[in-house]
Amino acid sequence: MTFSFELIGYAAATLTTVSFLPQAIMTIKTRDTESLSMGMYSLFAAGVLLWLIYGIYLDNQAIIIANAITFVLAAIILGFKIFNTLSNRYKKHEK
Amino acid sequence: MTFSFELIGYAAATLTTVSFLPQAIMTIKTRDTESLSMGMYSLFAAGVLLWLIYGIYLDNQAIIIANAITFVLAAIILGFKIFNTLSNRYKKHEK
Repeated sequence: MTFSFELIGYAAATLTTVSFLPQAIMTIKTRDTESLSMGMYSLFAAGVLLWLIYGIYLDNQAIIIANAITFVLAAIILGFKIFNTLSNRYKKHEK
Repeated sequence: MTFSFELIGYAAATLTTVSFLPQAIMTIKTRDTESLSMGMYSLFAAGVLLWLIYGIYLDNQAIIIANAITFVLAAIILGFKIFNTLSNRYKKHEK
């Protein structure tokens, strides 16, 4: 019984991580973050980081793996967003 | 020590749920699901449902609350997407 419930955790981790992948791949490929909300991604990345810390405290592998992968992807997207926002601001000052 | 780590779980639950709210509110208000991916939302909703079941198994309130709210919101969005897709298909047949 315990074994099958742990499998549910891994299935959950796989599904939510995989559902986030297309956005991450698109942003990494195109580097276009125009239509992404900085506020929303900041909250999301912070939340995923806290889930990761909480997963480490619970010593729960499914929670740790899902949130570690999602955090790296979300941090990359947020990094592009911050970079693009700052470089657009710089370009405006140049003109 | 345990108390503060449980707080991290609730903070994580709040942040990831809140970061999903703007999309949910926008879709419920406008009912526009044109730019949303059916495949991605199906995977996400299924994943969140499995996290909810897993949270019930772990008897972890932060995981249960976060995923229950997010599942309801994701299911509403997915419901609009399915309804819009089917009614567009019907309209095309009508022409």
